[in-house]
Amino acid sequence: MAENDLISENDLTAGLAASGTRQEFDSMGTIDVPADKYYGAQTARSLVHFSIGDDRMPKAVYHAYGIVKKACALVNLAEGRLPEVKAKAIIQAADETIAGQLDAHYPLYVWQTGSGTQSNMNVNEVLSNRAIALLGGTLGSQQPVGPNDDVNMGQSSNDTFPTAMHIAALEALDRRLLPEVDRLAAVIEAKAAQWMDVVKIGRTHLEDATPLTVGQEWSGYAAQLRAACAAIAASRAGLYELAIGGTAVGTGINAPPGFSVKVAQQIAALTGKPFVTAPNKFMAQGSLDAMVRAHAALRGLAVALMKIANDMRWLASGPRCGLGELKLPQNEPGSSIMPGKVNPTQCEAIVMIAIQVMGDDSAVAFAGSQGNFELNAMRPIIINAFLHSATILADGCEKFRTYSVEGTELNRQKIASFVENSLMLVTALSPVIGYQNAAHIAEQADATGTTLREAALASGHVDAATFDRVVDARAMTGHGVAGA
Amino acid sequence: MAENDLISENDLTAGLAASGTRQEFDSMGTIDVPADKYYGAQTARSLVHFSIGDDRMPKAVYHAYGIVKKACALVNLAEGRLPEVKAKAIIQAADETIAGQLDAHYPLYVWQTGSGTQSNMNVNEVLSNRAIALLGGTLGSQQPVGPNDDVNMGQSSNDTFPTAMHIAALEALDRRLLPEVDRLAAVIEAKAAQWMDVVKIGRTHLEDATPLTVGQEWSGYAAQLRAACAAIAASRAGLYELAIGGTAVGTGINAPPGFSVKVAQQIAALTGKPFVTAPNKFMAQGSLDAMVRAHAALRGLAVALMKIANDMRWLASGPRCGLGELKLPQNEPGSSIMPGKVNPTQCEAIVMIAIQVMGDDSAVAFAGSQGNFELNAMRPIIINAFLHSATILADGCEKFRTYSVEGTELNRQKIASFVENSLMLVTALSPVIGYQNAAHIAEQADATGTTLREAALASGHVDAATFDRVVDARAMTGHGVAGA
Amino acid sequence: MAENDLISENDLTAGLAASGTRQEFDSMGTIDVPADKYYGAQTARSLVHFSIGDDRMPKAVYHAYGIVKKACALVNLAEGRLPEVKAKAIIQAADETIAGQLDAHYPLYVWQTGSGTQSNMNVNEVLSNRAIALLGGTLGSQQPVGPNDDVNMGQSSNDTFPTAMHIAALEALDRRLLPEVDRLAAVIEAKAAQWMDVVKIGRTHLEDATPLTVGQEWSGYAAQLRAACAAIAASRAGLYELAIGGTAVGTGINAPPGFSVKVAQQIAALTGKPFVTAPNKFMAQGSLDAMVRAHAALRGLAVALMKIANDMRWLASGPRCGLGELKLPQNEPGSSIMPGKVNPTQCEAIVMIAIQVMGDDSAVAFAGSQGNFELNAMRPIIINAFLHSATILADGCEKFRTYSVEGTELNRQKIASFVENSLMLVTALSPVIGYQNAAHIAEQADATGTTLREAALASGHVDAATFDRVVDARAMTGHGVAGA
Amino acid sequence: MAENDLISENDLTAGLAASGTRQEFDSMGTIDVPADKYYGAQTARSLVHFSIGDDRMPKAVYHAYGIVKKACALVNLAEGRLPEVKAKAIIQAADETIAGQLDAHYPLYVWQTGSGTQSNMNVNEVLSNRAIALLGGTLGSQQPVGPNDDVNMGQSSNDTFPTAMHIAALEALDRRLLPEVDRLAAVIEAKAAQWMDVVKIGRTHLEDATPLTVGQEWSGYAAQLRAACAAIAASRAGLYELAIGGTAVGTGINAPPGFSVKVAQQIAALTGKPFVTAPNKFMAQGSLDAMVRAHAALRGLAVALMKIANDMRWLASGPRCGLGELKLPQNEPGSSIMPGKVNPTQCEAIVMIAIQVMGDDSAVAFAGSQGNFELNAMRPIIINAFLHSATILADGCEKFRTYSVEGTELNRQKIASFVENSLMLVTALSPVIGYQNAAHIAEQADATGTTLREAALASGHVDAATFDRVVDARAMTGHGVAGA
Repeated sequence: MAENDLISENDLTAGLAASGTRQEFDSMGTIDVPADKYYGAQTARSLVHFSIGDDRMPKAVYHAYGIVKKACALVNLAEGRLPEVKAKAIIQAADETIAGQLDAHYPLYVWQTGSGTQSNMNVNEVLSNRAIALLGGTLGSQQPVGPNDDVNMGQSSNDTFPTAMHIAALEALDRRLLPEVDRLAAVIEAKAAQWMDVVKIGRTHLEDATPLTVGQEWSGYAAQLRAACAAIAASRAGLYELAIGGTAVGTGINAPPGFSVKVAQQIAALTGKPFVTAPNKFMAQGSLDAMVRAHAALRGLAVALMKIANDMRWLASGPRCGLGELKLPQNEPGSSIMPGKVNPTQCEAIVMIAIQVMGDDSAVAFAGSQGNFELNAMRPIIINAFLHSATILADGCEKFRTYSVEGTELNRQKIASFVENSLMLVTALSPVIGYQNAAHIAEQADATGTTLREAALASGHVDAATFDRVVDARAMTGHGVAGA
Repeated sequence: MAENDLISENDLTAGLAASGTRQEFDSMGTIDVPADKYYGAQTARSLVHFSIGDDRMPKAVYHAYGIVKKACALVNLAEGRLPEVKAKAIIQAADETIAGQLDAHYPLYVWQTGSGTQSNMNVNEVLSNRAIALLGGTLGSQQPVGPNDDVNMGQSSNDTFPTAMHIAALEALDRRLLPEVDRLAAVIEAKAAQWMDVVKIGRTHLEDATPLTVGQEWSGYAAQLRAACAAIAASRAGLYELAIGGTAVGTGINAPPGFSVKVAQQIAALTGKPFVTAPNKFMAQGSLDAMVRAHAALRGLAVALMKIANDMRWLASGPRCGLGELKLPQNEPGSSIMPGKVNPTQCEAIVMIAIQVMGDDSAVAFAGSQGNFELNAMRPIIINAFLHSATILADGCEKFRTYSVEGTELNRQKIASFVENSLMLVTALSPVIGYQNAAHIAEQADATGTTLREAALASGHVDAATFDRVVDARAMTGHGVAGA
Repeated sequence: MAENDLISENDLTAGLAASGTRQEFDSMGTIDVPADKYYGAQTARSLVHFSIGDDRMPKAVYHAYGIVKKACALVNLAEGRLPEVKAKAIIQAADETIAGQLDAHYPLYVWQTGSGTQSNMNVNEVLSNRAIALLGGTLGSQQPVGPNDDVNMGQSSNDTFPTAMHIAALEALDRRLLPEVDRLAAVIEAKAAQWMDVVKIGRTHLEDATPLTVGQEWSGYAAQLRAACAAIAASRAGLYELAIGGTAVGTGINAPPGFSVKVAQQIAALTGKPFVTAPNKFMAQGSLDAMVRAHAALRGLAVALMKIANDMRWLASGPRCGLGELKLPQNEPGSSIMPGKVNPTQCEAIVMIAIQVMGDDSAVAFAGSQGNFELNAMRPIIINAFLHSATILADGCEKFRTYSVEGTELNRQKIASFVENSLMLVTALSPVIGYQNAAHIAEQADATGTTLREAALASGHVDAATFDRVVDARAMTGHGVAGA
Repeated sequence: MAENDLISENDLTAGLAASGTRQEFDSMGTIDVPADKYYGAQTARSLVHFSIGDDRMPKAVYHAYGIVKKACALVNLAEGRLPEVKAKAIIQAADETIAGQLDAHYPLYVWQTGSGTQSNMNVNEVLSNRAIALLGGTLGSQQPVGPNDDVNMGQSSNDTFPTAMHIAALEALDRRLLPEVDRLAAVIEAKAAQWMDVVKIGRTHLEDATPLTVGQEWSGYAAQLRAACAAIAASRAGLYELAIGGTAVGTGINAPPGFSVKVAQQIAALTGKPFVTAPNKFMAQGSLDAMVRAHAALRGLAVALMKIANDMRWLASGPRCGLGELKLPQNEPGSSIMPGKVNPTQCEAIVMIAIQVMGDDSAVAFAGSQGNFELNAMRPIIINAFLHSATILADGCEKFRTYSVEGTELNRQKIASFVENSLMLVTALSPVIGYQNAAHIAEQADATGTTLREAALASGHVDAATFDRVVDARAMTGHGVAGA
């Protein structure tokens, strides 16, 4: 087969039979595998030994693994360790993996070996067999492209899996999560600007407080999201450092000198991200600290989102017996029994997502603490949790923005009536008549059910003109969002 | 259509078209739904608004929901509220749901409304349309069987969803988890019995301690599992109490008197479990405390499993540079780079499963604390976590037992040599020569690298005959598992 | 010294000097200790090596340890292993420890050896020296009562510390927590009874729902507390099983046959609690599963309390711009700047306590999973967390009851006006005119701001007489708390 | 009284009586307070209402609060709002508070109002009365220096408490934690350098792997600590942003224009830290996100420490039946029953500290998510947890370093014998003879108990000269710490 033929090969089932099995082997012997899959013996063993629940290793891990394998093959090719014909076949198979075209050949479960070796071998086997198919060879023969000796050349699961974790995590952040949070923050900022002059009552401890504007309140939400975003972005620094080149235990055994630096450069070139080789491979393989820190940043977003979603559903509560300041979009009937009921369902979904992310964050930190010696063997749980958290946060932000935030409107009448009735505008009198006198006015108004103005004038501490000048809700909201 | 025809109807696609859409309506208007699905407008809306990640409401929730709907229909039929023809059609559709035959019609996501209303409506819609199909009517017409007025008769999401949660949770415990833990404990007990006389060195603080037998050590593992099992079984008590009959807010509005008791009896009859009506519906719907407690029991199992799996992988560590007392089955090659390496992969999977369950337990408790007024709107996250935890624990126990525990063998030579070399057998001398003298003997042996016997005799505190009589490792292991 | 003299000895500083130091020794050599303390060398070493933060091993652990030491001495005395003069002196010192009279001699930190050995030795040393003082001997001589050979006779830290943990935990539950939760539940039940006929609007998803009574709502709170109490009470079962008699690794080495059973009986007699010997000592010492389960029960209470406290502060929110259904006692000014502001501070304290207990519960479960072989060396963190959680829950319940729940009153006018204005009473029309028609009435009322009655009559689906008969808020609240 | 007298006043009990009570008042009326304390009515009320457990608001919060009050007084003085005589007295009282001289007057509990208002009022009251005393006035008169109108001028609890939180948190990091982690890392780096050429066996999955050097292994520990340190240092960025100037709800009501900027500058000047005013006060007061992120950084350190401490205790396990590569300092007898036993107690303390920090981190994130509207009322739990975590981490690192890491030595004989016996050096043969052949050699050696060399030669795949050249443990450890 000519090289050109290889590169133009587009049959994604070359060499596969539609049904039945074929034999594959590894160092433990032979085993039957489905004839319509490229994977080999170790994948087949893992499917038997670890069919636990429905949690599959996220496909994004394999897409990232394709980049790792491609980068290694490129370096091995450039330095003459891997013959061109093998290298090109491996690279094509890696490209197909990266593109998701071989997803069906990556079936393994999350709950497997803690190093991710079985997923690495899944990749090695698929790339081996796919390359063999591209080169017209016999699947399962491990010739001319072997899973260990060729595809895995100069590599170990111990360095490639955390490398793939970092790539997959960064892709999830850069492609989906950060843009979605940015879009949500932008919509909230637009709302804040739109409503910057709408005076509303403040609430602290759930109790009436001094006024602010709706826009000020929403500016706080946006600021929380912007800060959470910045922390997530900053957490990428640790993820840019790659373990590749440490091989088995961090020493780089069986990898040639310079491999770590060159592969990291290659991965940087392939992804457009500033990847570098990790300065200490014993940390890079013995811990997952960078992942723990990155997930903590996701949790920071969850914490912020929970506050925002809770505020929104409380402020929209009602329609007749709640706070009722906001009107959320009515997306679906809210009750199977109560006709006409509509609920803040997007907010509820966000709150549950936030709680799930916070629970998974505990699991991630726990797992991160359980490394031993040259390996932290808690990798599958951590990458699965990370990608899950990033995904439900991203999707949740998108749905929350689209179906709740963007369509939120104000009930200006309700907002205004709260301001009018509140007693806490008395605070503005405090510098004029003293805290204790002001307190007694508020208490008197509360006890007798009168307005603050009536109680103030009745107290004798302030005259009408002064009251009307000082107790000006709009003036109390100050200027801008940075306080006095 | 005759009733007999209905009951014998077996076409699970009756009334459906293979492609295209049809119109469905709810109180918000009409919407297109796929023509090959029985679900209606609210399901379709939810699919649009809540396509968040890949987490789908577990099918087991719908199977349980089928039981709820069937029980309600039976009671409504018996009391004359629901005409027989409608009731029988609903019941057949419910039976098909229970059997999983309609799973494809229940596509909703986990991250939806916190009450689970959308899943209840999904069931109402599917049963409505399926019943209509069985009765030869027009899908989407809500005639003659309406989703709200007929299928949901006397019910609310607020009482049916937690009822379905309890049923689904109990099924997961009774069918899968408890039997699997029992099987694992039984295998460990058998190993304990088999190895009850094999003397080994004890370890506390990871440091050498006085001897015990391998069987004693394993008896502790079994006792942990038995206690965890008992706690899980006990946690079922709270789950037997059903919210059904509380309807919208716990008062039972729109349900006839006696409904709660009768439906609970019907569910008990259908499932063979001792379900009763919850004595307080405001707790039953305003909290998820029983679920929180039941998940805590799952966590108790996770805690025990982690200890057992950790012990096993440490005791099997090596083969040359670890503790090496156990030989675990060699299931798969352990390394892509280190030839011949085999790892304790089943133990690692169990450890990760345990950590995941513990993280999810935090999420469940958090969610359980977030109820407001007449509803805890964190139901989807909690039932999803519960069923997930129960499933991965059950599957994990099965795999751990099959592929690791059952095939574990002893390295008797290693075990014996540790006992011979240990210094902590000096403890037996303590009652004879005093703690301080014994301590100095041990310290001397450690410092000089001699045997304990040599150091003891050299100390002058004990003669050879006494030493040999007192320092008898087997005797030190006592009798049985209950201590002195 | 005559025995009578000993028993009547009341000088709690016998043998101590007010200042300076004396020498004590252990197997590692001599060390200076403060002359005014009974403790010895190992306590002194621990104070140097573990002065970490301000967290001290709770005194309740030592009070419980006094019971363990007394029980062992009684058994050793009865069986002739411990001469009467020594035994009586040890027993008196133990009694003084139990009574808290020697608290100043138990200064150790929480963050010490994971077995609690240093605290056991602290007790052994104090009882040794105190007994020596009672017998007129020389402190630090370990004669005639030695810390290891006499006070610790037949014991190990490994079995006594978890025994003391169980005793201390049960005392905290029985003396303080369970009675306090009972008192709080009783007050809530009284409020529920008092307000059982006050109709109020229900809220689900924070949105207006069908009515219930205030008493029904509060009955749910009480039911949550009763269930939490029952779970805590049930969790005691595991704590009644004592490790004592397992000694070093569970085999009971150096303890005489029957010791475990007899000491457990003695502890049962001393405490009036149904203690028994743990049936499996390897579980009892290698795990802390019973403690993990007991703390989970505390967490269950925290989850319930959080819901109750949150409901109360929301229902009391206002006074003018919140829900305002409840009036909480006004205990203190709420703001340093806003005059007259009063906040739901007791509720906030409960919420923070609940969160702390939930966080500590995570730590307890984590620690519980980290046992190795014959010892779980995470005991100090777990007993510290348990006693802390039990204490702040008990004190929190007491303060919450006294300063918030007992004085809570209703704003009946606000409650009534919400019921009058609500649209969700439309639910009662659903069985009469169908869900969809009812929904359109509610939507119409919401959109136009009319009353439900006006919108219903305008719809033409119902006449005035029917409306007035069907839409009866009080009737909608059903009968009692168990739903329909 | 002349100003100079005031400034030189050193009697820290001026105006106080040694016993009895005096009356203090607030807006709710009068109350007795102990005559020997400067605090006033609100502190006294809080002591009654919130005596929950033994958790007191950390004194460091008050020291930081002193800085806040001093800075505000300086700005108010400079701008003419506060007369010089009042300002100087307040400033002196603040300085005494900062120095810890008034600690006895700050007795409040952690579990109080969620805004920290009671602690703010405690400061206001103490500074008011202390200033009154300095000025020769009558305690409790609130003249000439009032707690609300003067000490709290332009301030609210809502902006001052989070400001004090940030200051206290940063002091804890800068003064204690970061230097201690730095010292620990430095000691580990020195050990790594010292042992960089000592070849040892690597372990992955707890199983024998290819060799590395002891120094390489320890370099990984140091790298983890350095990264954790860097993350903690980076987390300070959010803490430098101060809420002061937002007053009640973030708008800055009752604070003069420019107050926020000027007070932040003043605090920066007083502390030497780069404090600035928070750009968005609604986030600064409505959330505690910066604290949540800073605690996550502490957790990152806990995760790293746990791995290091676990590795050390495992590598030191033995002395005869464990791994035994390390010899930790023997600080104290390890067992009350097993003579001569010594345990890795410092490692155990670190592990428990790490778990506690991780549990508290869950609580902090949970609390951080529970803000509502203009206030997150979970401040006391969060600052208490933060300061506690920082303290036990700092103290723990110091003790761990001093009593364990610094004195750790190698058991070079054991280390060498493991390398000699290991089979995983076969990995070096893989590139020469292929992975599968190498695997069979290792399996053969394992099965027959021979050396790797014997099995390799027997396999026929490699001759003695090649074997000896390729299988060179030292060469396998590569060069440096960055892998190949």
